[in-house]
Amino acid sequence: MALNLSVSKGEATRDALVGRAHSIARLQGLEGFSINDLAASAGMSKSGVFAHFGSRQDLQLAVLDAAAERFTNEVLLVAFKAKRGLPRLRALQAGWIDWVRHEDGGCLMLASASEYDDKPGPIRDRVVQQLARLRVALTRTVQLCIDSGDFAADGDAAQIAFEFFGIVLCVHHDGRLFGHAAAAKRGRAACERLIADYRR
Amino acid sequence: MALNLSVSKGEATRDALVGRAHSIARLQGLEGFSINDLAASAGMSKSGVFAHFGSRQDLQLAVLDAAAERFTNEVLLVAFKAKRGLPRLRALQAGWIDWVRHEDGGCLMLASASEYDDKPGPIRDRVVQQLARLRVALTRTVQLCIDSGDFAADGDAAQIAFEFFGIVLCVHHDGRLFGHAAAAKRGRAACERLIADYRR
Repeated sequence: MALNLSVSKGEATRDALVGRAHSIARLQGLEGFSINDLAASAGMSKSGVFAHFGSRQDLQLAVLDAAAERFTNEVLLVAFKAKRGLPRLRALQAGWIDWVRHEDGGCLMLASASEYDDKPGPIRDRVVQQLARLRVALTRTVQLCIDSGDFAADGDAAQIAFEFFGIVLCVHHDGRLFGHAAAAKRGRAACERLIADYRR
Repeated sequence: MALNLSVSKGEATRDALVGRAHSIARLQGLEGFSINDLAASAGMSKSGVFAHFGSRQDLQLAVLDAAAERFTNEVLLVAFKAKRGLPRLRALQAGWIDWVRHEDGGCLMLASASEYDDKPGPIRDRVVQQLARLRVALTRTVQLCIDSGDFAADGDAAQIAFEFFGIVLCVHHDGRLFGHAAAAKRGRAACERLIADYRR
């Protein structure tokens, strides 16, 4: 019993460290983020932090996984509660634009895509894997719009998903540099045009 | 005369250093790029490099300016030779998608937008200024499509420019992570749909 509690406490500390690291990495970038800042923020020593992770890279991978899991819980799973077809695509659009705004420091997955695109290795591999999975989820959501008759039968789900993702990228880009409200408004208008185009 | 030659040589060395730094920063990022690597690549000492720049930040700003100037020369000015209206917008699209492919390590301006969005200071200010100017040039190009009658008179040039930029962002994103050829093809198809939508 004591042993189990101890394990749980270790896991809880590890999860808390990953959460703090995620917040810091959104501001400093995943590559440049400071383990010293993380240790200070957690009131621990640097070696105390490393006791929970085999290496800096293990911590970075754990942070990426935490970012993906949070996106899945806060955006994808929420949208998937909506009826398949257009209601679900619209829910995904709304949740995604909100996500871009609420993540202090921006979306770590998108920032890491830019940061690691030229750095071969396990972190880049994980980023590519996560963003490929995300695109599959988006493409399936679009395919259900076609299958349910909300979009025309000759629609190309992967092409529509590409265009949808481009809008999200521009909301993120413009929002971070020029202000979120105007970017979100443009993003919603762009999605409405996309939907109107592909309706049957 | 000797003095003039000497000044020219100093300027030539500085330009060459900025060019090398631009290549390195595209791979390593503007913040993390190594002055040691730059010095080694130029066969100079670190202090030799700093003799040409007041500070690391001066060098970073010079690299950003060089990136913007190259984009202007290789994409914008080439496109501006095309007839105003749709021919010019199409030329801009073609040149931009090529630019994204040919820049080893990707577009430094876009990478820096992601890297510096949370780091207030002169570098972020320069990135915002450059990308705002770029958007103005794109919006004007679209406005000329409206003014010339190629696009419908009620078109919103800033909205169309936002959507066009989103496509470019997604070509860059997908191209860097999943491969350029497929991303460029999707980007061209997305631009054609955008153009078809806004035609009068």
